[in-house]
Amino acid sequence: METNVQFIGHIETPYNSLDECPVNIEAGGPICSLVIKKEWMNYLFGLESGMAILILYWFEKADRKRVQQNSRGTGQLSGVFALRTPNRPNPIGAAVVNIEKIENEIIYVKGLDCLNGTPLLDIKLA
Amino acid sequence: METNVQFIGHIETPYNSLDECPVNIEAGGPICSLVIKKEWMNYLFGLESGMAILILYWFEKADRKRVQQNSRGTGQLSGVFALRTPNRPNPIGAAVVNIEKIENEIIYVKGLDCLNGTPLLDIKLA
Repeated sequence: METNVQFIGHIETPYNSLDECPVNIEAGGPICSLVIKKEWMNYLFGLESGMAILILYWFEKADRKRVQQNSRGTGQLSGVFALRTPNRPNPIGAAVVNIEKIENEIIYVKGLDCLNGTPLLDIKLA
Repeated sequence: METNVQFIGHIETPYNSLDECPVNIEAGGPICSLVIKKEWMNYLFGLESGMAILILYWFEKADRKRVQQNSRGTGQLSGVFALRTPNRPNPIGAAVVNIEKIENEIIYVKGLDCLNGTPLLDIKLA
């Protein structure tokens, strides 16, 4: 059983290779931009600077066939559902961040862990 | 642009209609079960009772065309990206819960807010 998800925009980060990406969200990390496609603008109504949002994004370079791998923390072999690795059947990333500002319909946040150009799936109030 | 997601199992809750579902996750709520399909068993290796997990699930009854609606909290009209409503282009629910126990390859947690039978997309370490 499967279904489809739509990309509502993309994320701009300073990271252009997987080696550059931090392992996790960094609260004080560099500014990143959520660039939403014009067709979704009315869906953003009510979002404001200072709000905490949960964003969901799509690790498009992930290995969706990976079953187990070693934990980066403990080194122990674990199933991907017992880890946070992007390599998983549905490679969806989740991060809670604060809105730094919204300008020209771009949402600025800090410290995401994903590649520049990563597709965005959802924004919700955290 | 779009892509596909696979259902890795389903969630069993006490709720068989949307009216019965709580508005949010309830820390002390009733026991719910994450029933994972046999083919994904090796992906669970390393999960144990007491761990906090982030689960992602699919609100299959959601209205994916909804643009704005009134906030249940404030009553204000807001875009769905400024709310937590299941009605959104990609109706993915997210919840952090503790594993109460794992028995016969079913993961027991507490207090989910979704309908009985809701498809499950992902489990990650919280």
